[in-house]
Amino acid sequence: MNFSKNKLNRGFANLQGNYLFAEIARRLDSYRESHPDHKLIRLGIGDVTRPLAPSVIAAMHRAVDEMAGARTFHGYGPERGYEFLREAIVRAEYETRGVSMSPDEIFVSDGSKCDVANFQELFSSSCRVALGDPVYPVYLDSNVMANRSGKLQNNGHYERVAYLPFTAENSFAPPPPSEKVDLIYLCSPNNPTGTALDRETLSEYVAYAHRNHALILFDSAYSAYIRDPKYPGSIYEIPGAREVAVEFKSFSKTAGFTGMRCAFTVVPRELGEIHDRWFRRCCTKFNGVSYVVQRAAEAACSETGRTEIQRDIAYYMGNAAIIAFGLRKSGYEFYGGEHAPYLWWRLPDGVNSFDFFDRLLTCCEIVGTPGSGFGPRGEGYFRLTAFGDRADTEEAMRRIAERL
Amino acid sequence: MNFSKNKLNRGFANLQGNYLFAEIARRLDSYRESHPDHKLIRLGIGDVTRPLAPSVIAAMHRAVDEMAGARTFHGYGPERGYEFLREAIVRAEYETRGVSMSPDEIFVSDGSKCDVANFQELFSSSCRVALGDPVYPVYLDSNVMANRSGKLQNNGHYERVAYLPFTAENSFAPPPPSEKVDLIYLCSPNNPTGTALDRETLSEYVAYAHRNHALILFDSAYSAYIRDPKYPGSIYEIPGAREVAVEFKSFSKTAGFTGMRCAFTVVPRELGEIHDRWFRRCCTKFNGVSYVVQRAAEAACSETGRTEIQRDIAYYMGNAAIIAFGLRKSGYEFYGGEHAPYLWWRLPDGVNSFDFFDRLLTCCEIVGTPGSGFGPRGEGYFRLTAFGDRADTEEAMRRIAERL
Repeated sequence: MNFSKNKLNRGFANLQGNYLFAEIARRLDSYRESHPDHKLIRLGIGDVTRPLAPSVIAAMHRAVDEMAGARTFHGYGPERGYEFLREAIVRAEYETRGVSMSPDEIFVSDGSKCDVANFQELFSSSCRVALGDPVYPVYLDSNVMANRSGKLQNNGHYERVAYLPFTAENSFAPPPPSEKVDLIYLCSPNNPTGTALDRETLSEYVAYAHRNHALILFDSAYSAYIRDPKYPGSIYEIPGAREVAVEFKSFSKTAGFTGMRCAFTVVPRELGEIHDRWFRRCCTKFNGVSYVVQRAAEAACSETGRTEIQRDIAYYMGNAAIIAFGLRKSGYEFYGGEHAPYLWWRLPDGVNSFDFFDRLLTCCEIVGTPGSGFGPRGEGYFRLTAFGDRADTEEAMRRIAERL
Repeated sequence: MNFSKNKLNRGFANLQGNYLFAEIARRLDSYRESHPDHKLIRLGIGDVTRPLAPSVIAAMHRAVDEMAGARTFHGYGPERGYEFLREAIVRAEYETRGVSMSPDEIFVSDGSKCDVANFQELFSSSCRVALGDPVYPVYLDSNVMANRSGKLQNNGHYERVAYLPFTAENSFAPPPPSEKVDLIYLCSPNNPTGTALDRETLSEYVAYAHRNHALILFDSAYSAYIRDPKYPGSIYEIPGAREVAVEFKSFSKTAGFTGMRCAFTVVPRELGEIHDRWFRRCCTKFNGVSYVVQRAAEAACSETGRTEIQRDIAYYMGNAAIIAFGLRKSGYEFYGGEHAPYLWWRLPDGVNSFDFFDRLLTCCEIVGTPGSGFGPRGEGYFRLTAFGDRADTEEAMRRIAERL
């Protein structure tokens, strides 16, 4: 490299190894190369498999046709996303929950991953961050890159990060940090544990944020999977949350949009300068979501769309039930899978989760995700997802029962 | 705001007023409100107006149909973009220029604006940045947000930024900085001046970067408009550029994709750690471009697609010729419009460009972009774009001749 090495962002040097899913992909490629004819069952990455809903497909065809005519063509869209979509989101996601929300508080984007990774830019690098252990790696890695984490220590934790233990011991509902932090990442229903935070726990976090002038970054990408109203699908169901929380929601897992790319971030007006700065960031560093995709997302919010999508969610939750039944029958312990498309498999004592990844791959030809990839407290766990094909999921559970 | 004010990123506080185009939109909305029935001619924001090419439309319909079937559905795509698209890009954009490029050096994204704004994250905040004056505001603002600029001074320049004067006096081809800088933003064909950098000038920059261990961030979003091979459409036409330059290219202005969202960034292997870090950033903070849009972009790279697109480019360049003819006939001076869809109108001495914006709006009902919005050396200039409708463009020039 000809470029001055001392002018690189040092944060990147603090990152831990490879990005989890890239490392898994590497191991898979290597297995596939040596076993070219074998069919792997993928219960690893949280990627959907059901095709898009008919009303979404129809909306896209119409939008594509619009792009073919000079009078109906769409160029750059509004920075926050088209009003038709923001209004549809308010109706489908908030009015149905009895939560009042203005379309101007919605920012449409090409993915929750991007937004949740970029949002920290609004804050000083001196901010203290709290996040789960285990955790969706993006919260952590984006803060490491931004020089907010300090160095990685021997215990697998970063110096300056406050960790919230998501463990069986606290029923995956850790209390707010005992120290003062500025930014708190919460994910409910949780990736990777598959568990959800109830109203009481979330209320404690909102109260904590008020007292400590902190901000909650609430990732509810999986809220469509909640089956019990005691688990809020939006942080704004909690009184006082508008002053202290932003919320990330996505069409990816709700409407099968992982390959479509559409999500949204809610930044209430009460957040004042944070709202204005996020808008400014969108104007300066982003250029909106494809018109065709926004029309597709609008269709996913329609009544027909929502009915169609519920069928897909029910299908995935059927898979979750099959996995849960299989694991239970084989005598394994696990958590989640009731209000989330993830099951958090507690491995027998002493089993290392990356070793188990290799064992499940070679012995059952099933791909899962090693718990330790999500943090030190993920060690001894293994994540399975319910996003697979039904027959594959059944076959996977047969293999686990017979071969493992 | 309940959040601790001292924990906000101070960089944002150094930003200059509103984002240029948002400010223009505000003035327009206000004019429209008081003149609801008047038809404005928009030669302001660089947004395309021609519908998408037939082969692009057909490819999208096919891709939408794929998303409707379980066996042809696409979820998350590869982090760098689909190989079919990266290979098509290499063929269409590089082989045609005699430039050798590997598909693995291409990173597909949802827009050059995002990439060009995000790329600076790989570098330390101590980096010294050089960029044009006038300049596409994104280069500057993204560095201001990242605390790399220092404060705005009375002369309209930031303390720590090195400015490259793009002026008539140096034929819009400023020499490399006389001081040592680390990052150099170059845009050719240039937004806003509409001029292009020739082979000799670019070679000087490449040599400078080699000597100073600097990186060139080369934005060639408008390369499709170049009509004379003495202006390289890729920085990699310059020997030695692979060691010192990344390149941003987009389908927006080439194939009319402003509302579609697809672009790509080239990070050659020779850039070593910079290549690896950009890949890591894409894995961690981005989740790819819509499958449907990637298929559309692939079609735009096909031979049929390119032929169709050339017609649209010729159409826009026809508009540029009409604007040039009109301005010349009315006795105005201007630059650009030959190898770029922008004309850089030199206003009569002493005329302030924001005043002229208001005057052109009220007197001719034409929307342009005030030069000073692009930097202090843009004062006294005004940007017109060739992306309008033909009849509108003709009408605009009639109004300028008759009413101004």
